[in-house]
Amino acid sequence: KTITDVHECIELKKQFKVLWINIDGAYDPGIMEQIGAVFGINALTLEDILHTGQRPKVEDFEEYLYMVLQMIEFNQEKGEIIQEQLSLIIGDNYVITFQEKPGDMFDPVRQRIRAAGTKLRKYSADYLAYSLIDAVVDDYFSILEDIENTIDRLDVELIESYSQQAFQSLYALKRELIILRKSIWPLREEIGSITRDDFAVIGDGVEPYFRDVYDHIILVIDTIEVFRDIVTGMHETYLAGINNRMNEIMKVLTIIATVFMPLSFITGVFGMNFRVIPGLEWQWGFYVTIGVMGVIYGGMMFYFHTRKWF
Amino acid sequence: KTITDVHECIELKKQFKVLWINIDGAYDPGIMEQIGAVFGINALTLEDILHTGQRPKVEDFEEYLYMVLQMIEFNQEKGEIIQEQLSLIIGDNYVITFQEKPGDMFDPVRQRIRAAGTKLRKYSADYLAYSLIDAVVDDYFSILEDIENTIDRLDVELIESYSQQAFQSLYALKRELIILRKSIWPLREEIGSITRDDFAVIGDGVEPYFRDVYDHIILVIDTIEVFRDIVTGMHETYLAGINNRMNEIMKVLTIIATVFMPLSFITGVFGMNFRVIPGLEWQWGFYVTIGVMGVIYGGMMFYFHTRKWF
Amino acid sequence: KTITDVHECIELKKQFKVLWINIDGAYDPGIMEQIGAVFGINALTLEDILHTGQRPKVEDFEEYLYMVLQMIEFNQEKGEIIQEQLSLIIGDNYVITFQEKPGDMFDPVRQRIRAAGTKLRKYSADYLAYSLIDAVVDDYFSILEDIENTIDRLDVELIESYSQQAFQSLYALKRELIILRKSIWPLREEIGSITRDDFAVIGDGVEPYFRDVYDHIILVIDTIEVFRDIVTGMHETYLAGINNRMNEIMKVLTIIATVFMPLSFITGVFGMNFRVIPGLEWQWGFYVTIGVMGVIYGGMMFYFHTRKWF
Amino acid sequence: KTITDVHECIELKKQFKVLWINIDGAYDPGIMEQIGAVFGINALTLEDILHTGQRPKVEDFEEYLYMVLQMIEFNQEKGEIIQEQLSLIIGDNYVITFQEKPGDMFDPVRQRIRAAGTKLRKYSADYLAYSLIDAVVDDYFSILEDIENTIDRLDVELIESYSQQAFQSLYALKRELIILRKSIWPLREEIGSITRDDFAVIGDGVEPYFRDVYDHIILVIDTIEVFRDIVTGMHETYLAGINNRMNEIMKVLTIIATVFMPLSFITGVFGMNFRVIPGLEWQWGFYVTIGVMGVIYGGMMFYFHTRKWF
Amino acid sequence: KTITDVHECIELKKQFKVLWINIDGAYDPGIMEQIGAVFGINALTLEDILHTGQRPKVEDFEEYLYMVLQMIEFNQEKGEIIQEQLSLIIGDNYVITFQEKPGDMFDPVRQRIRAAGTKLRKYSADYLAYSLIDAVVDDYFSILEDIENTIDRLDVELIESYSQQAFQSLYALKRELIILRKSIWPLREEIGSITRDDFAVIGDGVEPYFRDVYDHIILVIDTIEVFRDIVTGMHETYLAGINNRMNEIMKVLTIIATVFMPLSFITGVFGMNFRVIPGLEWQWGFYVTIGVMGVIYGGMMFYFHTRKWF
Repeated sequence: KTITDVHECIELKKQFKVLWINIDGAYDPGIMEQIGAVFGINALTLEDILHTGQRPKVEDFEEYLYMVLQMIEFNQEKGEIIQEQLSLIIGDNYVITFQEKPGDMFDPVRQRIRAAGTKLRKYSADYLAYSLIDAVVDDYFSILEDIENTIDRLDVELIESYSQQAFQSLYALKRELIILRKSIWPLREEIGSITRDDFAVIGDGVEPYFRDVYDHIILVIDTIEVFRDIVTGMHETYLAGINNRMNEIMKVLTIIATVFMPLSFITGVFGMNFRVIPGLEWQWGFYVTIGVMGVIYGGMMFYFHTRKWF
Repeated sequence: KTITDVHECIELKKQFKVLWINIDGAYDPGIMEQIGAVFGINALTLEDILHTGQRPKVEDFEEYLYMVLQMIEFNQEKGEIIQEQLSLIIGDNYVITFQEKPGDMFDPVRQRIRAAGTKLRKYSADYLAYSLIDAVVDDYFSILEDIENTIDRLDVELIESYSQQAFQSLYALKRELIILRKSIWPLREEIGSITRDDFAVIGDGVEPYFRDVYDHIILVIDTIEVFRDIVTGMHETYLAGINNRMNEIMKVLTIIATVFMPLSFITGVFGMNFRVIPGLEWQWGFYVTIGVMGVIYGGMMFYFHTRKWF
Repeated sequence: KTITDVHECIELKKQFKVLWINIDGAYDPGIMEQIGAVFGINALTLEDILHTGQRPKVEDFEEYLYMVLQMIEFNQEKGEIIQEQLSLIIGDNYVITFQEKPGDMFDPVRQRIRAAGTKLRKYSADYLAYSLIDAVVDDYFSILEDIENTIDRLDVELIESYSQQAFQSLYALKRELIILRKSIWPLREEIGSITRDDFAVIGDGVEPYFRDVYDHIILVIDTIEVFRDIVTGMHETYLAGINNRMNEIMKVLTIIATVFMPLSFITGVFGMNFRVIPGLEWQWGFYVTIGVMGVIYGGMMFYFHTRKWF
Repeated sequence: KTITDVHECIELKKQFKVLWINIDGAYDPGIMEQIGAVFGINALTLEDILHTGQRPKVEDFEEYLYMVLQMIEFNQEKGEIIQEQLSLIIGDNYVITFQEKPGDMFDPVRQRIRAAGTKLRKYSADYLAYSLIDAVVDDYFSILEDIENTIDRLDVELIESYSQQAFQSLYALKRELIILRKSIWPLREEIGSITRDDFAVIGDGVEPYFRDVYDHIILVIDTIEVFRDIVTGMHETYLAGINNRMNEIMKVLTIIATVFMPLSFITGVFGMNFRVIPGLEWQWGFYVTIGVMGVIYGGMMFYFHTRKWF
Repeated sequence: KTITDVHECIELKKQFKVLWINIDGAYDPGIMEQIGAVFGINALTLEDILHTGQRPKVEDFEEYLYMVLQMIEFNQEKGEIIQEQLSLIIGDNYVITFQEKPGDMFDPVRQRIRAAGTKLRKYSADYLAYSLIDAVVDDYFSILEDIENTIDRLDVELIESYSQQAFQSLYALKRELIILRKSIWPLREEIGSITRDDFAVIGDGVEPYFRDVYDHIILVIDTIEVFRDIVTGMHETYLAGINNRMNEIMKVLTIIATVFMPLSFITGVFGMNFRVIPGLEWQWGFYVTIGVMGVIYGGMMFYFHTRKWF
């Protein structure tokens, strides 16, 4: 349900075993301060929440755990990655999430909360936090799939057409991969520290689940690295392909020039206006000249053939 | 023997000192749950088995050890690598293996089991697990050999023909090496942790054998790195070769153009229709002109020779 | 206020709870020695302050902490980075800063000092040091923004015009990024050691603030790495674009040459002065020849079209 | 002396203070088993000895130390590296070496053994082992020298002739360096662990000698890395050189074409058979035309000169 | 003063508080042995001194510390780096230095020794050792400055002239940087271990000075890395510049060919000797033809202009 008054939170906090408050969009500093007061949140944390563009990290304030994640969307048409900062405050019996914009990937979690008898209703706030983080990380896989599709499409395009436009797309994709990697890389350390260190609000029973998330993040990072290597390979193949095409074009040009320049020279010789040119008066002169040209032509072709030019 | 009923397992478990159950193909979640109940397998483990595409890893659940490996096949015709996830549950006196598809590289292990007096019959479940993992890792070497053959074949092809097609194959091979590396790299950590850490189900007597497997994995990874370096070198050599060819072609073109353009110009001069062109009326005019052309031709050739163009 | 006599410092030191002395510009070794004597500063430290161009570092002398930072300015017109060494001496109840030139980014800090009731007036010298360092690091972000703008501008320029000049700018930018990275990289270690190690003059209450600065530095370094990757990508795209253009040019040349060389050859044949050339006397000879040329032209164009040359 | 019967070993083992048995060539599994029985060698070790192509490593079996090294030969004519596995079993008072083929670099060691009063006769088996390993590592330096000579020779060849053949050699050399690196790199770890860890059969007095070997290996690895960097630099210089040559060739072609195409066009104009072409009848027409051509030629040359084309 | 007899050393050793013996040039093994006996130097150390080309390292022999450094000279004309091994034996109250050749950078140290009242006369042998090492490391900075000048000079040359010779120099510089890096890199570890470990002959009071040297070495290594990155960038810029020039040249060629080939074809058409060619007899035929050529020329130029070819 949607809350409009911060003071309701205090009531809710007492009332429920586990409380999840989700705050979307533009944060009003005043409201933030009130929330901070209600839940005892440090001023530094509130500042980090307000200044989006943080690096993924986890900070332990004993009373609560503060986590930053990047929610990522891939706009396949523009080949563009859109990031949104997700801040989590994980307390003993509450989880507060701060999103930049409405709309998220938490609907499956909400459904499981509403359904009776799921683990989410039995476990405490730490398991809820796990579920939310897991939903974010699972979403990365669907983005990786989108990127893989884009790569496969570009791969075909580049090899078939060597179009500058496809190359432009490849370059844009490379750039997005660089940014994606930067956003996800620190998550490894973040979730890793949850599985290793002893945080008060994370129970031992939930740690195996976080280890699972950790495995997923490693897999995501590995896959991004593989994508980067593949994109680099495509780049190099494209360049080699362009060079090959240039070779082809140059060969055609050279064959044409090499064949017709000597022949044209011969026609030039017999086109000169000297009074005395041997053969001009001869009846078969023209035919013999054409025949010689044919022989030259054949010799050239044979030469190119032995050099495997075509 | 092939088992169709899960409950038979309970009987078998009691009956034999070491039990190996191999489950192929599509996993029925219902059967999985039953197996899980019989052998006391964690729900997270069952999920990991069902969701193939896991990263190689080892997880200790005290009662049993859960391991994931990638079985790899190299289709030499398509130059494609096919992966299959192998999940191992290593208990005190049983080993359960889960494969995605029927057909594997465990026949030698099966033969040694059937043969009397082999170590496999004397030792416990940990040695059986070692034998299975060793079989998978040994198979990697045969794949490396296939890749080496492909590399050698491409190396000859590229140097001889500079064909775009051979380059395409090289690129495909590079891509497969990237994926292969990603699949095998984590094994190093996985097997390494078995030799280092103290897992309940792995006896001290079997650890030297796992150390042996570890050495093999390092060797596989080293070899993949070497292959990558070699393939990169081939790529660069190919590009240099293309450039060299282009140079050759350009040289031919330039020599032809440089020789025949001035000569054709001379024929053009004496082909003009001016009434007064000195020499046209002279009896030896034509022969002198041809002689001058010969001198120009010779000079050009000498010039190219001194510049080492051919 | 501006102090001209060093001995005033002794008075001031006793008088105030926290003292900040800022020394700009050319350091007089004599004055430096006096300051050193008043505040008990080690000779090695004084030497490091005088010799600018130090690597960022922190040195603990129990009585005080000596820190070196680089203040960075980005001249967007010249695309040039200007560095200035900032030395900090952090004592129990004083902070001394040494700048190479007057003019800095500390005005916000000064304002907060003057304002009553801010944390800066409540806390001790360590919090003042944090405020100064934070101001320097915050300034890095504005430089990163300037660089990002430059990158975006060059990206458009390079793709649109492939001008050698834009490439020159890209190269200069790359060079500046190398130097920037060298200046900021060691800061990571420097601030990291403040958050980890136990320095006498840094109170436990201020450490979270330094952890915040540490996070910012990591973010700066990450961003520089991303910029480097992007600039490298732009470089490669530029090269690929040049190659593509060359291809385009070669194609035009080859098409023209391939079409007109055979046609010119035909005109040459019928321009020869043999007495007997079949067709010359024929009334329709010229028209048939032109028609044949048209057919050759059409055939060439069709050939190029099937090879997708245009 | 050459032993043909394994049982002699038992006698020898009792008789001498330090025993060195060297086994060349094809290993007979039967004999191996006998040796294993006599000296108490583990089955895994015997297998490793039989399967050559092992990674350099050291394994401690308390009773003895098992070491694997690669002996390397560089065939300078073919530019090929030949590897041979050397297995060492270092016991309390014996050293057994297994070589793949007869012929080795141990003759200096043998001479020192025969000479009276050398350290080799005073010290125990561990010093003998050191001497053998030192001989292998010292041999690496002579190989590095051979490679350096090859690099220097190729460097001159490449810069002088840009021959494709010299480049082929460079590529082969690169490949050999990759393999060489792979063989020597693990040695660092191997010898390092001898100097660090406490192996029963290696006395404290001999450890400084192994530290010396360790220094040598680091030097070898450093040098290989430097060679790789240099070879990469040569590769890039070669490519730049090819591109430069191409530029040269293109310049010649362009100058020739740019000069003679307009001139030939002019001759074509006055070669047309129009009845009325102004100037044809004029007495000085030809000379003026030639003069105009000369002016065009001069203008072109001046233009190329200002653009620094030659 | 110059000593010719080794036995004098013994006298000197007793006589002075701190003794510095500097041995230049070819080492006589006999003399070396005598020195070894007098100062109790290990045989392995003496061997290392004799075999120059050692990697920088420090070895603790309790009685004394053995250090190896590389003294480096940069011959700016040849762009060549010359290395010389400096071996230091640091004892309780003596320092022995071994240089390959006479002539060094220790004159400032000598002057400070001779001057009364400097620290060098007050402190012990460890401070003398520091002074010598500091002189060597300080000299590195002047070499870095020389290299920076060379880089700046080449940068201008390459951008202005794209001469193959400047590129050759760049390549040579790259090679020298590789070697320089190899020589200085291990120093980091060497001096680092002096500041960290507890060596008997290095007093606690001198350690801060060594920490200072350590900072300098890190700065040198950082700078070499930056130089390498810059040189790589210059290399790439050079290649891009060559490609750009090629484009320019190709454009000129293509424009000329594309303009004059069709025009020459037209002159060829009207140069044919058919009896019936329409227009030849017409009074304005020539002028109309020339006009058509002008239109074609204009069209071509317009086309090239719209494609931004000039």
